[in-house]
Amino acid sequence: MSRRLAFLGPPGTYSEDAALRYDPTAQLLPFASISAVAAAVDSGRADEGVVPVENSLEGAVTETADVLIQDAQLSIRWEIILRIEHLLLARPGTKAEDVRIITSIPQALGQCRGFIERRFPKASLEAALSTAAAVAEAVGREGTAAIGNRRAAELYGAEVLAEGIQDRAANLTRFVVLAHEDHPPSGDDKTSVAFAFAVEDRPGLLVAALQEFSSRGINLSKIESRPSKEKLGVYVFLADLDGHRVNAPLAESLERVREMCSFFRILGSYPRFREAA
Amino acid sequence: MSRRLAFLGPPGTYSEDAALRYDPTAQLLPFASISAVAAAVDSGRADEGVVPVENSLEGAVTETADVLIQDAQLSIRWEIILRIEHLLLARPGTKAEDVRIITSIPQALGQCRGFIERRFPKASLEAALSTAAAVAEAVGREGTAAIGNRRAAELYGAEVLAEGIQDRAANLTRFVVLAHEDHPPSGDDKTSVAFAFAVEDRPGLLVAALQEFSSRGINLSKIESRPSKEKLGVYVFLADLDGHRVNAPLAESLERVREMCSFFRILGSYPRFREAA
Repeated sequence: MSRRLAFLGPPGTYSEDAALRYDPTAQLLPFASISAVAAAVDSGRADEGVVPVENSLEGAVTETADVLIQDAQLSIRWEIILRIEHLLLARPGTKAEDVRIITSIPQALGQCRGFIERRFPKASLEAALSTAAAVAEAVGREGTAAIGNRRAAELYGAEVLAEGIQDRAANLTRFVVLAHEDHPPSGDDKTSVAFAFAVEDRPGLLVAALQEFSSRGINLSKIESRPSKEKLGVYVFLADLDGHRVNAPLAESLERVREMCSFFRILGSYPRFREAA
Repeated sequence: MSRRLAFLGPPGTYSEDAALRYDPTAQLLPFASISAVAAAVDSGRADEGVVPVENSLEGAVTETADVLIQDAQLSIRWEIILRIEHLLLARPGTKAEDVRIITSIPQALGQCRGFIERRFPKASLEAALSTAAAVAEAVGREGTAAIGNRRAAELYGAEVLAEGIQDRAANLTRFVVLAHEDHPPSGDDKTSVAFAFAVEDRPGLLVAALQEFSSRGINLSKIESRPSKEKLGVYVFLADLDGHRVNAPLAESLERVREMCSFFRILGSYPRFREAA
């Protein structure tokens, strides 16, 4: 039976691209929010779920960070890094000079700001809740173009007015697969952790915690801080480390850090992403 | 002559609230984006500019972080922390049972998700580019309510359907005032810095840099990492430290850290925010 794979919908989003890249044979189940994807995996409606975690232009996806910090039922089982290519899409027959409105998620509008100012200086911008919803909207309304991906163009029957319209060529998004269990050691793994300190002398403790890794030669491939939901100035740290949580020397470092923290959670160990040949 | 103060418009945004809080006598100039606010100060069209930098629920405002990292002409001169209270607003005469559509910026929709699911489970959600634009839209269209603030209600003649609708009471946003010069020492100051490392052994260097502060007893009130725009996994760090950049021991620590970094910029020293009595 094929894997039931939840993703941040509707069909035609970049998350669906990532889900198909992970498992082209999966049964894909769209959900309206990252929290809903997580809840579907929690409840067993889906076996696994694909959510975006970080973009090279926009930074962390805060809703995913919050789900990872708070939902102790879920682990990261896999990562996927996708090169994002934005297209300008509209109803078939639309010409560039007809476009008066450009719609997409605010992040995509921001990533294409230079293109829009150069080519459509008079267009008004409209926000949408997903790139796929923007494409559906554009196909249904004259004079409107949407920023989205090739799959949305196919799904909604949109015509491609322009390709590769993002201002910077390097636009990478990292997605993770959430599941009830993380991945066994593969030989080249990463481990994600979240931790926080209770006391006021947090700066000293953060340094001490990071030293547990650096003194053992463990590479930290990412560190990120999320403000606590209760108070500005209190942070939960999210770190990605090289190695699997069950293997030395990472296993030992994690135990030492756990002892220093008021909150500590291993989010999962999973194989490092490799570009398909 | 009153100060010309740029802010993230249109009138009726939370940024305007913060600008009025900073200087009620200023001449307020709305701009459509955070980059446009920065450009207005750069070019002399405005004397100073107010932009959001961090929210206790949503995290860092990435566009502001990028402006601070990249624009060497601007310094942080002041900070303002605002308690955000969301209202549900609509055209006068609208009853709760008439509301079929709720519109706002995606962040505000997210912050009121529990309220919406409880009270308006059938409403469809629409994204807007600012809370003020959402309120203007709602006033112009039957069956639509917007999430915004009290000033937008006044400016656009909207009726308040519900108050304090955010799911968490503690919803604080920190704003900063950008200017050509930072603030002289006031006796209780903070200093913001941005820095990055060139080499691959960055984890060890981050620890070494943070030790320059912690070993001198300097409190780090915030640390945040922004992915480099070029490559996932390379970060610029943004830190807030207690003290003024011209005074010991901070001045000495900053010099030591500067020597370790491939990129180092003091974003400014400014008085710590104090709640008005």
